[in-house]
Amino acid sequence: MQNVAVAAVDWGTSSFRLWLLDQTGMPLAEVRGDQGMAALKPEDYGVVLETALTKTDAPADAPVIICGMAGAAQGWRPAPYFDLPADLSVLHEQACSVDGMGRDIRILPGLAQRNPNAPDVMRGEETLLLGATLAQGIQERTVCLPGTHSKWASIIGGNVKSFGTAMTGEIFGLLAKSSTLSHFIELREEVSQNSSFSSAVAESLDAPEALLRRLFSVRSGPLLFGEKVAKEAAARLSGLLIGSEIAAFRAETEDVLLVASGKLANAYARALGVAGVKFDQIDAEVLTRSGLAYAAGRIWPERFVR
Amino acid sequence: MQNVAVAAVDWGTSSFRLWLLDQTGMPLAEVRGDQGMAALKPEDYGVVLETALTKTDAPADAPVIICGMAGAAQGWRPAPYFDLPADLSVLHEQACSVDGMGRDIRILPGLAQRNPNAPDVMRGEETLLLGATLAQGIQERTVCLPGTHSKWASIIGGNVKSFGTAMTGEIFGLLAKSSTLSHFIELREEVSQNSSFSSAVAESLDAPEALLRRLFSVRSGPLLFGEKVAKEAAARLSGLLIGSEIAAFRAETEDVLLVASGKLANAYARALGVAGVKFDQIDAEVLTRSGLAYAAGRIWPERFVR
Repeated sequence: MQNVAVAAVDWGTSSFRLWLLDQTGMPLAEVRGDQGMAALKPEDYGVVLETALTKTDAPADAPVIICGMAGAAQGWRPAPYFDLPADLSVLHEQACSVDGMGRDIRILPGLAQRNPNAPDVMRGEETLLLGATLAQGIQERTVCLPGTHSKWASIIGGNVKSFGTAMTGEIFGLLAKSSTLSHFIELREEVSQNSSFSSAVAESLDAPEALLRRLFSVRSGPLLFGEKVAKEAAARLSGLLIGSEIAAFRAETEDVLLVASGKLANAYARALGVAGVKFDQIDAEVLTRSGLAYAAGRIWPERFVR
Repeated sequence: MQNVAVAAVDWGTSSFRLWLLDQTGMPLAEVRGDQGMAALKPEDYGVVLETALTKTDAPADAPVIICGMAGAAQGWRPAPYFDLPADLSVLHEQACSVDGMGRDIRILPGLAQRNPNAPDVMRGEETLLLGATLAQGIQERTVCLPGTHSKWASIIGGNVKSFGTAMTGEIFGLLAKSSTLSHFIELREEVSQNSSFSSAVAESLDAPEALLRRLFSVRSGPLLFGEKVAKEAAARLSGLLIGSEIAAFRAETEDVLLVASGKLANAYARALGVAGVKFDQIDAEVLTRSGLAYAAGRIWPERFVR
């Protein structure tokens, strides 16, 4: 394949995504899989990577830039944490090299907030923030990155000043699949299209202290009021949790950049609307690729068009 | 066995407890097991019950009074819900009979709060409330029944006026056993003895809207600050959740009767203390037995001493 500058990989807990990028950072080919950290032993990562590179016909000399959980203690190689306040233009300087693979492979650091009163870590999202600050030029903004572990980051002067994590997606999954609420939860629907989603968001914003007390209504409502209420259960659970997340970060919700894709983006856009929060939206994958391309361009400048 | 009035059974989601009661309601023998609703098919209940009755040498004519999930739709026989406001002195009148077992077996109803804005149900706790109101004579009180699903009930004029449910115990279990927090959670310890428990309770009471955002610190704290913080993880998780439950019911926390036993009682007593809530404490099993004995005395008065 012509003009391949690098292979860029977003390696999460439950997903693997690889793109071949050209000399301007544009994607030429991609591979997606579910071989995330949770499914892999350290010795598996090299095989998964080389299989994807072969599938995309990547040149033998193409270097690889990786972000995400591949750099966790339980991942491929432990990449360090980069401390706050974080100037992401030098994030790549602390990347961890993976030796013995016959090509140049680097794993980007995560970020650590070493505040004893609000300790926090991220792996993967720093690369989206790199895309937002360096590739998109964002200087002052709250960035909301919804997901299994939603991250809310404050960008000040182009640096990551602080961030917080809400386990919204993980708790939704646990309650939807493994709890006494599960019986009434239908996971296929697009929750944000259901009016119960908006009203549940509003309930959580109105009484954010009442989350633990409201969740059980997702079960007791259908038990007492039947099928019509049961159909709203997934939307209601999602709305209660996302509303609660927004309430938790309300002090930081001025002028938000929402970084998400698909159904998740729709749900958060709707919820931020209910909360009356002004926001712009940008696709998460676009930012991931631009963050990876930026870091790769600093490590291997000769492979990119300046 | 002499003087057995009835067999009294508390049949929960994950536990089975049977007591033989004498003619004054005092326990003569008991059997405990983990054959709760979650582990049983409808056809299993009769076998579990008869095995326990045989083990305690119960007379062939002893009737059986049951409360709890045996009366749920997924239980043994569906017992109805009793509506609010609930005069529990007549709860037994809506008990469900189990036929064909060769003895008189009744399952007590649960309670339903048919309020579309706060739908709620309970099965089992109504019997503790029966013990509190009829056997203990409580007329005006908030009763806190901690557990997998904690219940907070308002007793007014001796009747159950309203109640709410917090899924505190279930969410603790899911997060402690099946989440990204699990790695640092040591379940054997007595959490309320750890100073991190009290400070986490206080954190949740101070900023009750921030629950979803604080939970992740149970993981990120140990990741960044090591073993000392890791040892506090279970206490911290429990404290954040129990503090959040108390915050959710804060408007109802005047003059609370805490109904619990063992470690759970210790944890809630400590947390109510941190919250500055005045409370008395009573053992949950004592109330369950007195509630079952009261209902049995109304159904089979000839078997009890008046």
